[in-house]
Amino acid sequence: MPKIIHTMIRVLDPERSKKFYGDGFGFIVAHQLNFPNFTLIYLRNSENDFEIELTYNHDRKEPYTHGDGYGHYAFVTENIQEMHDKLTAMGASPAAIKEFKQEGELLARFFFVVDPDGYKIEVLEKWGHYH
Amino acid sequence: MPKIIHTMIRVLDPERSKKFYGDGFGFIVAHQLNFPNFTLIYLRNSENDFEIELTYNHDRKEPYTHGDGYGHYAFVTENIQEMHDKLTAMGASPAAIKEFKQEGELLARFFFVVDPDGYKIEVLEKWGHYH
Repeated sequence: MPKIIHTMIRVLDPERSKKFYGDGFGFIVAHQLNFPNFTLIYLRNSENDFEIELTYNHDRKEPYTHGDGYGHYAFVTENIQEMHDKLTAMGASPAAIKEFKQEGELLARFFFVVDPDGYKIEVLEKWGHYH
Repeated sequence: MPKIIHTMIRVLDPERSKKFYGDGFGFIVAHQLNFPNFTLIYLRNSENDFEIELTYNHDRKEPYTHGDGYGHYAFVTENIQEMHDKLTAMGASPAAIKEFKQEGELLARFFFVVDPDGYKIEVLEKWGHYH
């Protein structure tokens, strides 16, 4: 059975991205491949085998574009207010914490934050399906 | 520590997507939320907790757009030729299997395939960092 192992995003400044994902989510460098024109950096923490792969194309200067198809990736956390406070202190300006309900039943508590290259991240409190 | 749990993509035809991810990667529906205007469908297999979340906006007719920032998600498999054959038989037209080397050392054997909405998927053979 195939196993899903990473998602790849292109970033302009790998140091900026490593700081964001490290300070914000505990995702640190697990593996790095250096080539003349590009660098591949794999970030992870101990909670899941799944990694974020950063592709840094050395010559790229203009910001990457985002279509309307790809959405976000999501993290769960025990304490959503603590994560919100941490990201706020980092200057990441997370959106407000919201509740997602269906017929009065709480499905999720979550907020969105945007990484330095504009990729959307959903942070969910551990609850129901999200754990 | 936050745990990464899913990535979300928007799709035009959830039945087509479920068939593609089910037949191709063994990703089947783990959870579904139905709302008047949209449906959320969570796909996974037993190899990893990480899920693909399909968002189906019922009124959307035109294809979603893809910028140049977001790259792909990746699966590993024991037998890459078998996966290539299966996806070919499904009519998914995977690209050729390639080798990724650095100073003569094999880093990865892989191919790319595109899902029904144009999202890129990398399929890697289990090897080295990719497992």
